[in-house]
Amino acid sequence: MTQPQSWEARADEYSLYGFTDLPSVQKRGAVVLTHGEGPYVVDVNGRRYLDANSGLWNMVAGFDHKGLAEAAKAQYDRFPGYHAFFGRMSDQTVMLSEKLVEVSPFARGKVFYTNSGSEANDTMVKMLWFLHASEGKPQRRKILTRWNAYHGVTAVSASMTGKPYNEVFGLPLPGFIHLTCPHFWRYGEAGETEEQFTARLARELEEVIQREGADTIAGFFAEPVQGAGGVIPPSAGYFQAVLPILKKYDIPMIADEVITGFGRTGHTWGNQTYDFVPDAIISSKNLTAGLFPMGAVILGPELADRVQAAVEKIEEFPHGFTASGHPVGCAIALKAIDVVMNEGLAQNVVDLAPRFEAGLKRLAQNPNIGEYRGVGFMWALEAVRDKASKTPFEGHLSVSERIANTCTDLGLICRPLGQSIVLCPPFILTEAQMDEMFDKLEQALTRVFAEVA
Amino acid sequence: MTQPQSWEARADEYSLYGFTDLPSVQKRGAVVLTHGEGPYVVDVNGRRYLDANSGLWNMVAGFDHKGLAEAAKAQYDRFPGYHAFFGRMSDQTVMLSEKLVEVSPFARGKVFYTNSGSEANDTMVKMLWFLHASEGKPQRRKILTRWNAYHGVTAVSASMTGKPYNEVFGLPLPGFIHLTCPHFWRYGEAGETEEQFTARLARELEEVIQREGADTIAGFFAEPVQGAGGVIPPSAGYFQAVLPILKKYDIPMIADEVITGFGRTGHTWGNQTYDFVPDAIISSKNLTAGLFPMGAVILGPELADRVQAAVEKIEEFPHGFTASGHPVGCAIALKAIDVVMNEGLAQNVVDLAPRFEAGLKRLAQNPNIGEYRGVGFMWALEAVRDKASKTPFEGHLSVSERIANTCTDLGLICRPLGQSIVLCPPFILTEAQMDEMFDKLEQALTRVFAEVA
Repeated sequence: MTQPQSWEARADEYSLYGFTDLPSVQKRGAVVLTHGEGPYVVDVNGRRYLDANSGLWNMVAGFDHKGLAEAAKAQYDRFPGYHAFFGRMSDQTVMLSEKLVEVSPFARGKVFYTNSGSEANDTMVKMLWFLHASEGKPQRRKILTRWNAYHGVTAVSASMTGKPYNEVFGLPLPGFIHLTCPHFWRYGEAGETEEQFTARLARELEEVIQREGADTIAGFFAEPVQGAGGVIPPSAGYFQAVLPILKKYDIPMIADEVITGFGRTGHTWGNQTYDFVPDAIISSKNLTAGLFPMGAVILGPELADRVQAAVEKIEEFPHGFTASGHPVGCAIALKAIDVVMNEGLAQNVVDLAPRFEAGLKRLAQNPNIGEYRGVGFMWALEAVRDKASKTPFEGHLSVSERIANTCTDLGLICRPLGQSIVLCPPFILTEAQMDEMFDKLEQALTRVFAEVA
Repeated sequence: MTQPQSWEARADEYSLYGFTDLPSVQKRGAVVLTHGEGPYVVDVNGRRYLDANSGLWNMVAGFDHKGLAEAAKAQYDRFPGYHAFFGRMSDQTVMLSEKLVEVSPFARGKVFYTNSGSEANDTMVKMLWFLHASEGKPQRRKILTRWNAYHGVTAVSASMTGKPYNEVFGLPLPGFIHLTCPHFWRYGEAGETEEQFTARLARELEEVIQREGADTIAGFFAEPVQGAGGVIPPSAGYFQAVLPILKKYDIPMIADEVITGFGRTGHTWGNQTYDFVPDAIISSKNLTAGLFPMGAVILGPELADRVQAAVEKIEEFPHGFTASGHPVGCAIALKAIDVVMNEGLAQNVVDLAPRFEAGLKRLAQNPNIGEYRGVGFMWALEAVRDKASKTPFEGHLSVSERIANTCTDLGLICRPLGQSIVLCPPFILTEAQMDEMFDKLEQALTRVFAEVA
């Protein structure tokens, strides 16, 4: 390093990039960001981008929310760090646990903290293995999830994630079983109604349980709306069909609300939007509005009692992360829950969702858009070569990456996922900013489809 | 909740306690903390404790360091959150990666961020599985660690951890192999010298590699000094004996420096204290002085090149956490590295280590202390029923918990681990505070040994 280097060259030299298309970054250079203004972020060259992905779904209050920053700063002055081991924890931690149970769908419950959604799902799996073994059923270890599910990247949460890319790690580990993704438009069979599709998926669940043996299954995990799978709401009646089967075989149902929690779908929880009550909730992301790494396992009354009884038998639950229940994260989360729920952010999602859907409906008239889908402030447009047959574009065309890169050139950040473009903007988005998002996206779609269609 | 509740009752009602002795907390109540002053923390009842464990090894600058809080607060005002996916990241992230390679023992390298040491070890395992598969050796999946190692609590990092308590989860997973702990005092055989012990452990390593087949082994992970195993420095010449064997069989050597990194052992890295160069370093805890959840994998030149080549073959490394490379965490880490290394904290460890050891040596004259051991600012005293035979106290006496609880009553926090008491105070500790620590510990030892010995 005798020469001063550009930010982009420094990023390249010292980073092992994760979830990054290397050909794109090699051609275009890394984007190094310095600050944000509302839903916009700004790079080292002064370029401004409307971030229609809220960072990674999580920066729901935008990139310069004063109240949230003040809450963080006040706690750094007061008590800048502690753990939650050995029966010691900060006052903020106690208050957040109380608040999380209060805003949960549960009458009572218990909270366990982690630093991410990955760790929270990994923790929940360990908790289920521990619980079943304690109750005399150590063979209850298999985990059921769905294709296109995203539950994280630790070796176990990646095994739950239903994405083919995990093959490069030799994952999933044995005992992680993926069921059909509840995406009717893509996986419905010829002549099948949506109701018949849902009934088929419910039958598949019961067949898998009977084939594997209910007494070998530890739990079923599902996102109310699949997020990183490409924004996939459940088919009609899905959770109403699935939950009675899980109950029949005593299989705990865990709702992974890392993305859907705290207002993204138009209610506090995705399970409220889809009208079911899980046995436990996995929370992260919006929980701190992206200002602090935090995850939480929120156990409903039955699991809380059973896990607590199992812990009391051995006197100590041998699990926990150094920063579990960090006082700054808890202070931020307490403020974020208040800001999102009581300062108009959740309400803005409800108010603008119809306008969001109308904009997508209009764009979906394009012959190369096969489907628009979503709810609240999480939506996707799926590109197709042929609309009637739902035939995708050839993979080598990298259509969604080209659309996303063209958007970036126009000052709009959106996310390519498979052949879909995902839009999940901050909850503070105004009508004018929504119009800007649609205008730029439309320009990009027109330009890219003219090249490839 | 019609009645106002005590802090302790609220903690009990909403927490699933981790790593907490339930009989102790049920008898004594949770300790709910509000703030800190230097190396002291203060609870809701105004009681003050000298925290001789730096929180969990990590709050090395104490609990109210002004400069660190200012760095955090400034970044919250500037850019309070972003990710490091899709070739986008904050300027703070670029600067920290550059700094981490600069302060590492490596001439060059690449950095990957996580939110914890658990996630960093779990990530390193996935990275090794990915690398070996990419290089045509997908069967290279087994991981070698040692008994009493602590590498974290995700299902995979808990499988690496060599503690019997992981049996309650049905862990370790298959393929995680634990070698003998390099603790000569405890595991040396009758008549064996320390050099012979080290040679025996090196032979064991080579025998295990030959038994399992070198081509089935993905990597070897070791803490330079085992931390949560009870502060266990390596036996004389251990790493010098082990590294050539790993090299001979092409097995990457990963140094887990979560605890030992950034000054704890009297050098920046534990690998410098014990004079070896690993292939990669796992960092966390001190990295942010406990102010933010963060972990990092720092790859040395050879692994960086090989992993980068493997990623380029598939165009994208499908791994990463939402808060990987969080701008606030990176800004705090940049400041923490500067504060620890350049503002006298690391130097204070070097300066006071002889006084620390002298104090322990004096306490170890007690007939019920079998050994004192450690380095820098990480030490342990091990209680024994009989010093000559090294016979431990009966488990039901919970000797170390009683000592730690008595210390807590006296206003000193230290940690019971097995039959040892661990001391790893913040690096800002003064001589007077060290004297206070020893005075209170001695009172507790006298009181408890009078009851049980």
